[in-house]
Amino acid sequence: MSVTDIDAVDLAESVRTVRETEPLVQSLTNTVTINDVANVTLHWGGLPVMADSFGDAGEMADLARAVLINTGQVPDGRVEAMHEAGKKANERGIPVVFDPVGVGSTPSREAVAESLLSEIDFTVIKGNYGEISALAGVEAEVKGVESVGDYEEIERTARSLAESTGSIVVASGVDDVVTDADGAVRLTAGHEMLGEVVGTGCMLGATVATFCGALEDDHEAAVHGTLAFGLAGERAADLEYAGPGTYRTNFRDAVANVTSDTVGGPSLEERLEQVL
Amino acid sequence: MSVTDIDAVDLAESVRTVRETEPLVQSLTNTVTINDVANVTLHWGGLPVMADSFGDAGEMADLARAVLINTGQVPDGRVEAMHEAGKKANERGIPVVFDPVGVGSTPSREAVAESLLSEIDFTVIKGNYGEISALAGVEAEVKGVESVGDYEEIERTARSLAESTGSIVVASGVDDVVTDADGAVRLTAGHEMLGEVVGTGCMLGATVATFCGALEDDHEAAVHGTLAFGLAGERAADLEYAGPGTYRTNFRDAVANVTSDTVGGPSLEERLEQVL
Amino acid sequence: MSVTDIDAVDLAESVRTVRETEPLVQSLTNTVTINDVANVTLHWGGLPVMADSFGDAGEMADLARAVLINTGQVPDGRVEAMHEAGKKANERGIPVVFDPVGVGSTPSREAVAESLLSEIDFTVIKGNYGEISALAGVEAEVKGVESVGDYEEIERTARSLAESTGSIVVASGVDDVVTDADGAVRLTAGHEMLGEVVGTGCMLGATVATFCGALEDDHEAAVHGTLAFGLAGERAADLEYAGPGTYRTNFRDAVANVTSDTVGGPSLEERLEQVL
Repeated sequence: MSVTDIDAVDLAESVRTVRETEPLVQSLTNTVTINDVANVTLHWGGLPVMADSFGDAGEMADLARAVLINTGQVPDGRVEAMHEAGKKANERGIPVVFDPVGVGSTPSREAVAESLLSEIDFTVIKGNYGEISALAGVEAEVKGVESVGDYEEIERTARSLAESTGSIVVASGVDDVVTDADGAVRLTAGHEMLGEVVGTGCMLGATVATFCGALEDDHEAAVHGTLAFGLAGERAADLEYAGPGTYRTNFRDAVANVTSDTVGGPSLEERLEQVL
Repeated sequence: MSVTDIDAVDLAESVRTVRETEPLVQSLTNTVTINDVANVTLHWGGLPVMADSFGDAGEMADLARAVLINTGQVPDGRVEAMHEAGKKANERGIPVVFDPVGVGSTPSREAVAESLLSEIDFTVIKGNYGEISALAGVEAEVKGVESVGDYEEIERTARSLAESTGSIVVASGVDDVVTDADGAVRLTAGHEMLGEVVGTGCMLGATVATFCGALEDDHEAAVHGTLAFGLAGERAADLEYAGPGTYRTNFRDAVANVTSDTVGGPSLEERLEQVL
Repeated sequence: MSVTDIDAVDLAESVRTVRETEPLVQSLTNTVTINDVANVTLHWGGLPVMADSFGDAGEMADLARAVLINTGQVPDGRVEAMHEAGKKANERGIPVVFDPVGVGSTPSREAVAESLLSEIDFTVIKGNYGEISALAGVEAEVKGVESVGDYEEIERTARSLAESTGSIVVASGVDDVVTDADGAVRLTAGHEMLGEVVGTGCMLGATVATFCGALEDDHEAAVHGTLAFGLAGERAADLEYAGPGTYRTNFRDAVANVTSDTVGGPSLEERLEQVL
């Protein structure tokens, strides 16, 4: 199976499965957007749990259906808990999603990412164009946690990271690219307001983790989770908003209101294009 | 005094007292919902302070009118600060509320709860049906931090925990049960949307702590705080909402708008039923 | 240059500069309002980054345009990271803003503040009347993190702190006072609802840090950042709201909507009065 085999039209069925499965999704994440991460997990139909202390983290990973590791902050104890939960998830064969927030900006973040990548097999790596490029070892500019600069080769860059790690790679930007070692697709969904709110990148990681926790196929989870997220971003803009505050509230509503009845149909096909 | 002596109709007077007293309420809590906990404390009329580092925690407990301990996350340093603040509160004779989030799911959480219960006399223990059952030592199913399964005997279970600990016990679920060693009441208030938002359980704990910090009688604080919280949940649904995002915003407004003028009257009596 | 040289009418130009510069602003802050701090930084046009672990903190301060240090919580590791980031900022000559949340309430907070003040040259110190008075060594009453009591001499108190530290001092309250060793101005802007929401004080600190990161003159950044914040608070109240929940959402929108086109004009002059 490759990401290029996934049919966008099957999204409705995936959404239904996530809502029926109610997967327990454990996130070890930064304190900036931890509430957003927990809420978006719940709003897709998952059960969020944020166990991130050494000991508790490994025990919870023994119960979870998927684990998200987000390195937006890297305090000592939490990084150890990330290793513990990631290894336990690998042992059990459940999906682990990596969101290497801000990698490419400081040596410390690079060291944490390298250490996690060397010890944990990640099912999916999700980052913005800059973060994915930094992990792939090509020139990147990450300003704090923001991707700046041009990434014309992002499909090839993301695919090279997928090849070297064996992970599915989601590179999020104006369009989102989802790739594995065998091919790449470009998803056209989303809204510019998503960039005006802190935490939407983290919430995309949580969305992919939640879909991974419910769906049998991880490639489908990565593609459909990313697509569903973008569609929710569009619907949030269909509701009335006066700025990023109301848009953020709308987005939470929109996620909860994406159901198998409200997404679907052949028009989804034009959202997905095979690019490699 | 027992929870069975409390009159629901006196709620208006309790709300007035909380708003006039402006109690300083210290919370040591998880980072997921810490902002919700602080805001709900403020919106009831309390002054929230989230001192949770060893040293500062004990010093702040020397000034506070009530302390909330919520173990939704259990990093080492914070657990020590919980012990420090809890003991200081006991020393001073001010109320301490315990919200054992996720107990029953992992051995680490059970160990932390046991250690806190063995060293601190809690005025109130607030948990969902699963957490209260787990603490009471009866069969429970806690999935992450969610209570799943049936709890037909929850009144008896909660009362047995009240008997063994000497605490007032609030078991929150579709209906809320408030009990002590001498009896139990069932409160009928709330709204299903409260379950669609992360952190409402934590906010209930903060509400009870705030009421405890202002009212003379802890039984009244537990019953009236829990009832006021449920009523606010209903009023949030009276306002327009399109999903959990807007409902959450409404709920904050609703809490701030519950005043002695807007709650009360004999209709409150049907909200409270003695069940044991 | 002194704060008394700043013209309120130049605010529009400052807002434009902040939005065009997009400064990278690093905050080391409490977990209660960290999401608010990050969002408000973004909504003014800055790029927020919340690197607060030792190592990563110093490295990020090597890239940032301004650093905010907020001691609303004081866990051991984070305080060390504050020292590291603050010293690096001093080394590089970039602005550092200090928000000593809750100083005056516990000995631990006083010790942390003294230690930071002894090792770091702060460009701006921002606190409520109680916190500024406590730092200045005059009688103050801080209840948790709230300023209570009367502060009739706040201009002189704030100026004495500015004299002893060499920092610009922003004392926030009903009116805001901005002072340095050479004079003081009083700003009349804001709305009472700002006091009904947790975190507005922290967001003011983040606003000043963001303006400092973009503007050449720190006195202008302190005065214009504080004034812009108050104006956003007023505009949030012009939008419909039913309580602190909707007001908080409005405030985020209002900040994003303060642009060089929507603020300005001679009416701004009456907002600023030289008082010392």
